[in-house]
Amino acid sequence: MAVYTDVGDEDLDRFLAAYDIGSAVAFKGIAEGVENSNFLLETTSDRFILTLYEKRVAEGDLPFFLGLMDHLAARGVQCPTPIHGRDGQALRHLAGRPAAVISFLKGVWPRRPTARHCAEIGRGMALLHVAAEGFALTRPNALSLAGWRPLVEACLPQADSVARGLGATIANELAALEADWPRDLPTGVIHADLFPDNAFFLDDNLSGIIDFYFACNDALAYDLAVALNAWCFEQDGAFNATKGRQLISQYETVRPLTPAERAALPRLARGAALRFLLTRLYDWLNQVPGAMVKPKDPLEYAQKLRFHQAAGSFRDYGID
Amino acid sequence: MAVYTDVGDEDLDRFLAAYDIGSAVAFKGIAEGVENSNFLLETTSDRFILTLYEKRVAEGDLPFFLGLMDHLAARGVQCPTPIHGRDGQALRHLAGRPAAVISFLKGVWPRRPTARHCAEIGRGMALLHVAAEGFALTRPNALSLAGWRPLVEACLPQADSVARGLGATIANELAALEADWPRDLPTGVIHADLFPDNAFFLDDNLSGIIDFYFACNDALAYDLAVALNAWCFEQDGAFNATKGRQLISQYETVRPLTPAERAALPRLARGAALRFLLTRLYDWLNQVPGAMVKPKDPLEYAQKLRFHQAAGSFRDYGID
Repeated sequence: MAVYTDVGDEDLDRFLAAYDIGSAVAFKGIAEGVENSNFLLETTSDRFILTLYEKRVAEGDLPFFLGLMDHLAARGVQCPTPIHGRDGQALRHLAGRPAAVISFLKGVWPRRPTARHCAEIGRGMALLHVAAEGFALTRPNALSLAGWRPLVEACLPQADSVARGLGATIANELAALEADWPRDLPTGVIHADLFPDNAFFLDDNLSGIIDFYFACNDALAYDLAVALNAWCFEQDGAFNATKGRQLISQYETVRPLTPAERAALPRLARGAALRFLLTRLYDWLNQVPGAMVKPKDPLEYAQKLRFHQAAGSFRDYGID
Repeated sequence: MAVYTDVGDEDLDRFLAAYDIGSAVAFKGIAEGVENSNFLLETTSDRFILTLYEKRVAEGDLPFFLGLMDHLAARGVQCPTPIHGRDGQALRHLAGRPAAVISFLKGVWPRRPTARHCAEIGRGMALLHVAAEGFALTRPNALSLAGWRPLVEACLPQADSVARGLGATIANELAALEADWPRDLPTGVIHADLFPDNAFFLDDNLSGIIDFYFACNDALAYDLAVALNAWCFEQDGAFNATKGRQLISQYETVRPLTPAERAALPRLARGAALRFLLTRLYDWLNQVPGAMVKPKDPLEYAQKLRFHQAAGSFRDYGID
């Protein structure tokens, strides 16, 4: 939840004058989006989200993110669309930050995902992967294997203050994955952060996918591994095989996995669990006094990692 | 900014079934309102604000606050209106908290108030005071003179850690006001917290007043004293007499002040400055680790207090 930068009303009026979307009639900071400042902007013509990109988002990556949303929306994916100003630009500056106006999507994110939600996400993710084909820009995944070692090294000295043995867990897991990380899998543009709070539903149907600010080029099946972690575990930490089956089988109705992807899934899921364990642990160990974001529990992902370490094969994810 | 309590989608659906307002199509936490959790709720019929009352709001006060909004809205004041369920009730429970759905008001609060905004607020406040006449419930002002001594005593031991001499300032000011606090002024229901972020404007016209959760019965002119503090000082701490004149003179076009109110205004303004100095100082000295609210600077109000201490008469507020 976040509004890191506020916007003066006169600054907002000047900013909106660059667009053909009318003038502001309501403007409220939204408690969503950990990385950026987001506002609900209602104008005389429609409702929008105004995003100010804060320092954790590299300005050089914004053309990739905004261009991807344009590309996906043009191919029928229900996602926010950047609004272009009279000069054709979608990206400009406001209150000293890069800023963009994007379309408002209806829907409510599921606080307690069901198997039905998992099915919808599986299908929606595969449609996203297919629709992203042909997108001209590329962005490497900064939070894949090569990005984990610096995080492990930064966290290692204090990791055991969070849980005894956690330092050894992350160091050993990184070594194991570095020795055996799946390569040569089908790649493309992935969302890379498709958690429940980034998916809107209306009447149990997926109505939109938001927050493309971790999107990148990587193995497509890695996106599925992220979603297995984010959608298919219960609050007590148990893996729900019904949800896993729904997620994967509905993905495959659109884009069947290759045998190599199936074989790689347990390792990809370990990697995805390690990625979120590491970023959460880093944020946990580096809390900023007065920050307005409550850090998420890293140990949730240590528990998920243990499940994947024990999983021997694709079948452990609910697929017969 | 605040969302302290989240709401599950199924809980929300069950909650909305008690109303005739359709089902949820969007639901976003709003980064506004320090005391409560607020959500923008869009249903198939309209937009609303859903508020969960957190522990700093006494549940026993909610009928006063909600009833007041009903009373004011029925008399033409542009303010949020509680939505009543099929059972006639506006107050129920959600996610373990007292909760209410209120109407959505258009408008943007002014980040840099102008003299024009001050004029609108003066007139709007007087209309509110007149419209509140006849409201059947009463609520004493817990943050008036009698409420300041416990805050002073709680803050005194650490006050000088914030600024040298601050302890003496608050102790001396409290003693002075206790000896000479204006009594027997005209009373009624006051907003008591009418800061810029609680006032919405459209095209420089006041479009609504929100957040009645400090409203109470007290001297009407005390509300004006709060507004003088909140609206009429520049960011460098200087009092802007043009803004003061607009605020007061436009108030008086609706409800002229009595000679006793005029004479009391400097003391009321000192009291209002002390009240916000004390609550900000208390929050500053009692920061909760991991709280999602950034405490406001108490010293802003120490500076305003000094202005009012030097002000000898009503004329110092811009009125000839």
